[in-house]
Amino acid sequence: MLDKIYVALIHYPCLGKDDKIISTAVTNIDIHDIARTCRTYDVKQYYMVTNLPAQQEIIRRVLKFWIDGSGRKFNENRTEALYEVALKSYYEDVIEEITQREGEKPLSVFTSARIRPNTITFKNMGDELRKSSKPILMVFGTGHGLPNEILDTCDYSLEPVRGLGDFNHLSVRSAIAIILDRLIGEEIAPYARDLTDTL
Amino acid sequence: MLDKIYVALIHYPCLGKDDKIISTAVTNIDIHDIARTCRTYDVKQYYMVTNLPAQQEIIRRVLKFWIDGSGRKFNENRTEALYEVALKSYYEDVIEEITQREGEKPLSVFTSARIRPNTITFKNMGDELRKSSKPILMVFGTGHGLPNEILDTCDYSLEPVRGLGDFNHLSVRSAIAIILDRLIGEEIAPYARDLTDTL
Repeated sequence: MLDKIYVALIHYPCLGKDDKIISTAVTNIDIHDIARTCRTYDVKQYYMVTNLPAQQEIIRRVLKFWIDGSGRKFNENRTEALYEVALKSYYEDVIEEITQREGEKPLSVFTSARIRPNTITFKNMGDELRKSSKPILMVFGTGHGLPNEILDTCDYSLEPVRGLGDFNHLSVRSAIAIILDRLIGEEIAPYARDLTDTL
Repeated sequence: MLDKIYVALIHYPCLGKDDKIISTAVTNIDIHDIARTCRTYDVKQYYMVTNLPAQQEIIRRVLKFWIDGSGRKFNENRTEALYEVALKSYYEDVIEEITQREGEKPLSVFTSARIRPNTITFKNMGDELRKSSKPILMVFGTGHGLPNEILDTCDYSLEPVRGLGDFNHLSVRSAIAIILDRLIGEEIAPYARDLTDTL
């Protein structure tokens, strides 16, 4: 079903340049762009995950400006999109909240710019999204990507976008847009909106 | 053919809130994200169009940092993507440069979040891209979109991404990513790279 799709953007744990685990900085435009994409594709909630209080504060300030502040007067569509955003300290908190909300644990989908073993194709993942009655969590990394400790907890690992091209360095904002479009496309699911509105 | 695709991001003339013609501000991340997307999909050149000297200076400074400055040491892939970017003052300058480079005027494709008369579908536009031997210029707006004076000069008007959804406010960064993916997808065109390298 397309009415229980969740997106998480992970800032910790992520890989740094030397493949060590780091906490990445929040990018202001990641809040906006990914919220707008998620709202466009009827994603039920967009979780931003960072364990650092100063980074959490950045997210809270942006949301406050657009939801309670003067941003709403400037651009109401932006405000509507930012209702998608929920802030969590850890990945485990996201799994826990979805599990409580839906009454069952979500199937989690690891994403990466690299081809991994046991990769599911876009076609098969799209079929799974439509067929499964379970909630689905799409997990995206920042920095140099998600570590194996996240991969190991995931039910699927999605094939990369243009993994065979000679340049494979899309921004996470562009990657999320392309991936949701490939999986959901033009399918319009007004019921998803109705459901979210009642929560 | 997929080896003569060009992208232009227009900052003037664009529509403002009240549908008057304005010059929009350059967004730093539009330089990066769209260059990375264009490089990923083997776009031949990404034109940023702004008539304001102060805005042109922003683009030049960003490119200088990543191409001649310390940015290259920080992230070489970013430098590679930013070679895609060319700065022009006016839309007409883009048409002129492509015409000189390719020996013929490009077919130009208007994009919009709204459905317009004489719209071409993604399917038909993708077929046209593969079939046509002419250069193709995809034209994207900022602010509240492109004015009719641009539409009137274009050969095609592309259908919007999820034009029938109840929320249709993708960022231009996400829209370009989705549109290039829909038109080009996983098709890998190494010949395009070879051609560009000789220019």
